[in-house]
Amino acid sequence: MTTESMNLQEIYDLAKNTLKRNGCNDQNANAVSKIIQAAEQDGSTSHGLFRLPGYIKALKSGKVNGNAVPKIIEKSPTIIQVDGENCFAPLAQEVGLPVLAKATKKFGIAALSLTRVHHFAALWHETEYLTEQNLVGIACTAYMPNVAPAGSKKAFFGTNPLSFAWPRPGKRPIVYDMATAAMAMGEVQIAARDGHSVPQGTGLDEKGEPSIDPKEIAKGVLLPFGGYKGSAIALMVELLAAGLTGDNFSYEAAQTDNKDGGPPQGGEMIIALSPEIIDGPNWINHCEKIAKKLENLEGVRIPGQRRHRNRENLSSRNINQQLLMTIKNL
Amino acid sequence: MTTESMNLQEIYDLAKNTLKRNGCNDQNANAVSKIIQAAEQDGSTSHGLFRLPGYIKALKSGKVNGNAVPKIIEKSPTIIQVDGENCFAPLAQEVGLPVLAKATKKFGIAALSLTRVHHFAALWHETEYLTEQNLVGIACTAYMPNVAPAGSKKAFFGTNPLSFAWPRPGKRPIVYDMATAAMAMGEVQIAARDGHSVPQGTGLDEKGEPSIDPKEIAKGVLLPFGGYKGSAIALMVELLAAGLTGDNFSYEAAQTDNKDGGPPQGGEMIIALSPEIIDGPNWINHCEKIAKKLENLEGVRIPGQRRHRNRENLSSRNINQQLLMTIKNL
Repeated sequence: MTTESMNLQEIYDLAKNTLKRNGCNDQNANAVSKIIQAAEQDGSTSHGLFRLPGYIKALKSGKVNGNAVPKIIEKSPTIIQVDGENCFAPLAQEVGLPVLAKATKKFGIAALSLTRVHHFAALWHETEYLTEQNLVGIACTAYMPNVAPAGSKKAFFGTNPLSFAWPRPGKRPIVYDMATAAMAMGEVQIAARDGHSVPQGTGLDEKGEPSIDPKEIAKGVLLPFGGYKGSAIALMVELLAAGLTGDNFSYEAAQTDNKDGGPPQGGEMIIALSPEIIDGPNWINHCEKIAKKLENLEGVRIPGQRRHRNRENLSSRNINQQLLMTIKNL
Repeated sequence: MTTESMNLQEIYDLAKNTLKRNGCNDQNANAVSKIIQAAEQDGSTSHGLFRLPGYIKALKSGKVNGNAVPKIIEKSPTIIQVDGENCFAPLAQEVGLPVLAKATKKFGIAALSLTRVHHFAALWHETEYLTEQNLVGIACTAYMPNVAPAGSKKAFFGTNPLSFAWPRPGKRPIVYDMATAAMAMGEVQIAARDGHSVPQGTGLDEKGEPSIDPKEIAKGVLLPFGGYKGSAIALMVELLAAGLTGDNFSYEAAQTDNKDGGPPQGGEMIIALSPEIIDGPNWINHCEKIAKKLENLEGVRIPGQRRHRNRENLSSRNINQQLLMTIKNL
């Protein structure tokens, strides 16, 4: 793979200029570009510049409004809705998260419901933001159907990611962001390209039979992680992200999307909790003990640590040259 | 298995009289007996009279206070703590759940933190209670360590159950209550007794090697369901149920428990949300559509339906005679 070296500012600028050239105003372009830059910084290239062509497709087709002005609707002192007016999700988060954090610090628990947004990024940005203010964050979103509920052979759930983040004052949080599918479809496609098999339980072929051949699964359907229990988690995500917000279930996203290749319209649910209010000041010592114990357990990795180590490195990143060519032509 | 037929009232009376004979006052005995009766009615025998000997052990050793008067502490208008004063969890729930529901109907989201309780029952009682008032319920609790985090060979998490319940006005809710372990230790012991093997991924033997022999796993440790993703869910439960409440992590429960065979002291976290406030009146139609779609997906079972069908049957239940002998001698 031929790559080109770019520093973090150059990555941000490339994203922002490309978005502005394709119809985003400064505020919309800035929100998305910060998220792309952060993903590259964390070494999560699949959520970095790699997503930019998809974002641009959604702008070009008119599905996403690059001049949207998300509106805050306070449904109660602890329920904040942001109507994104079809913006990309990062701008709606930028508008809603500070209000969510403020409500949570006052009441101990609050929720942020993002509606009419287009989500195409990782979810740890939202939940890590909350941990920086010593709050716990839970976030989830639904997507286009490509996962069969346990027992079924039909795509119904999205990959339905769930992020959870726990604050550690003065340290990086414990944080994860995981698809509730056994494997992301992108990873299946890479395995197919490289001629590798995938583990039993990853997906079904076109006929609905279990397969370890990624080429067959790519024509079929993914399965949830962990059998019927993982399927239950995927169902919870579907109901929280779309049922509670009132936005599209995965199957509704498929029915209404214009199939431009960009992110469909959907909702996101973010729940924040304050350990300071729920427990009291002792929470820091109590919870730091379990974090230390986990760090010292042989074979165990604290979720998020790999990304956080990458984040410390402020030097240039190697970006796929072919991707850069594509972006420059957008 | 020799059984004896008992009607639901007789099951309740047997539980209550046994608890009262062993030091529970009327209120404490009533709360536990209702839970035991409901489990038998739902066909969940492992959470029915089967648990009574364990409850009694905890009363006899003095670990649990059968005369406890749980106290409500309103930490904010949306954070309710119930200090159980070492009661069995059902009484603390009875005291706290109506306050939680009231706060959630007003604010849209609220949390109930149960501390100094002893949890030995299923969690669907709590979450189904909330759905009866058209609220969403999420509940979790930690326990004694017997599950190794993904990558580790050492017991650290409890079986850490998670319950989620979604309301369907006029119908039974969608509801599940699942251990985040691949299999409950009780099921492993039954497989050992019956000479069956268990699926790969259920647990490790004494040496920390993967095993499908339940006898070896019983000497070793359970694994989380679904590999490192299920392990992440188990970690979330541990942090919500013990980190947020400030009560015992699983490893702390093991350190402080008197090993009488009854339930250790721990915390429980219950989060409630109002779709009516978060979305609006349209939620009922919108969400009923996905429930119907799920019901019509071939091979898919709506979580909770089996229990709910059992619940409709008000006739007598067949109770293990040996268990009844044990109970009568308590």
